[in-house]
Amino acid sequence: MTLDKNTNILIVGLGVIGGGYATALTRAGYTVKCITKNQRDIDYALSHGMIKEGTTEVTEQMLGEADLIICALYPQIFIDWIEENQALLKSGAIITDVTGVKGAVVDRVQSVLRSDLEFIAAHPMAGRESSGVEYSDPDVFRGANYIVTPTEKNSEGAIELCKGLGEILGFGHISVLSPSEHDKTVAFLSQLTHVIAVALMNCNTKEGLEKYTGDSFRDLTRIAKINDLMWSELFLLNREELLLQIDAFGAELNLFRELLADGDTDGMRQRMRNATERRALFDKKKN
Amino acid sequence: MTLDKNTNILIVGLGVIGGGYATALTRAGYTVKCITKNQRDIDYALSHGMIKEGTTEVTEQMLGEADLIICALYPQIFIDWIEENQALLKSGAIITDVTGVKGAVVDRVQSVLRSDLEFIAAHPMAGRESSGVEYSDPDVFRGANYIVTPTEKNSEGAIELCKGLGEILGFGHISVLSPSEHDKTVAFLSQLTHVIAVALMNCNTKEGLEKYTGDSFRDLTRIAKINDLMWSELFLLNREELLLQIDAFGAELNLFRELLADGDTDGMRQRMRNATERRALFDKKKN
Repeated sequence: MTLDKNTNILIVGLGVIGGGYATALTRAGYTVKCITKNQRDIDYALSHGMIKEGTTEVTEQMLGEADLIICALYPQIFIDWIEENQALLKSGAIITDVTGVKGAVVDRVQSVLRSDLEFIAAHPMAGRESSGVEYSDPDVFRGANYIVTPTEKNSEGAIELCKGLGEILGFGHISVLSPSEHDKTVAFLSQLTHVIAVALMNCNTKEGLEKYTGDSFRDLTRIAKINDLMWSELFLLNREELLLQIDAFGAELNLFRELLADGDTDGMRQRMRNATERRALFDKKKN
Repeated sequence: MTLDKNTNILIVGLGVIGGGYATALTRAGYTVKCITKNQRDIDYALSHGMIKEGTTEVTEQMLGEADLIICALYPQIFIDWIEENQALLKSGAIITDVTGVKGAVVDRVQSVLRSDLEFIAAHPMAGRESSGVEYSDPDVFRGANYIVTPTEKNSEGAIELCKGLGEILGFGHISVLSPSEHDKTVAFLSQLTHVIAVALMNCNTKEGLEKYTGDSFRDLTRIAKINDLMWSELFLLNREELLLQIDAFGAELNLFRELLADGDTDGMRQRMRNATERRALFDKKKN
């Protein structure tokens, strides 16, 4: 299968990511249909020209004609959805996802999937601190990273199709990692940062601090506005890796604390210069 | 003294903050002169219409005619500058500053200052991760917080003048704290955030991670591009408060780690909901 303007694309789950995908694909000239929980979200998407049609019911027709199914669901809901609905999918259909952990999801889905379907997992590294289709915005994908996480069960064709999807969506850098490498990487780059933001937001509850804050505190806590249902699930599905990352960060924090307690200016400045140099690598390249 | 268009304003130190002040004051119709270390910075400021005149030498005339002296210097350099140059200042002149710690600075300057001069301290809570006049931008002050930190040695007139300066510069919220309350507050809101960003940047040195990152990691490490000379000085001048804040954050981080290790979904979700609710207070209000 190749992705072209005749491909029937079905998005399952019209939230902040599913909505962004819908808009980006529709703008690129593809025909996008969708299944989601609330009629309100379908109405919103239709009135904003994001999708061609949508339904809150899983219909035989909608599933039976889809060539590419993009599941933008929370991990366990995604796994359940596949188990419940895969019987209705067209032979040869390709399924992809957007979930933030891969080890626990990819193994499970690939092991239960019909042999004439293929699941190729991917993770768009672009979220927003608010959830819901009305906050979706395909511009967050521009210049952002997109990670495809194939296993030995995937075909070259599906991997290429999934990378192609990332390009159509406008991602700036598309890469490939194994599910376990992916999970180690996001434990550090994404999950640890959310843990830090939440801890920072909670560790000083003095009233009125907002009158004195600067942008640094705002930046470090932007993601403390967090979808607690989704992130607690993601954390638990990647618990061992995330614990390792929290501990590595805690050790580095403690090392800096000791330099400060000892009045070791040179030691602190060296850590700061390391950080400055390394941070330059992470500047976003707009494409 | 009141701040009006006849006030002779002298900025000492034309860096990222001094430069922002110069531009904002010039745009507001005030006459701004400056003393700074490098002729290059004066040339830049003159060619960009930021100042009326500037010199790299401390001249009797420049100091003798100044009504308001804004020292935008690192803390120790500021203290030294006052000790070395106050003899040349006009009787009745008012001095203010921009330094990020107050306890160690205000006491010291007020105790050595000539009795016919007055030092009223202030801290603009708006910085940039790059230093130098060419990165200065008065727009960072819009909607930002400005803290005046008087002591019992200050007159009502000087406090009001300093608040008025904050308004002219375009700050969104101007408040008053004692030097010690200020130092507790910035230890949390500003210094701790820089320590966290540096530790996060240093705790995982694996190569190539920039290919997989999302915006959350970028946001939490923006300030890891840090002026090591200035921040190590600020940290040491506020060491005890900063150590307390690091420890409070470390305790909260560890609490969250234990919830995760125990698989306590409800506990994690509660911490996340607290953080989400509290973070809403800190959204920037553009004025």
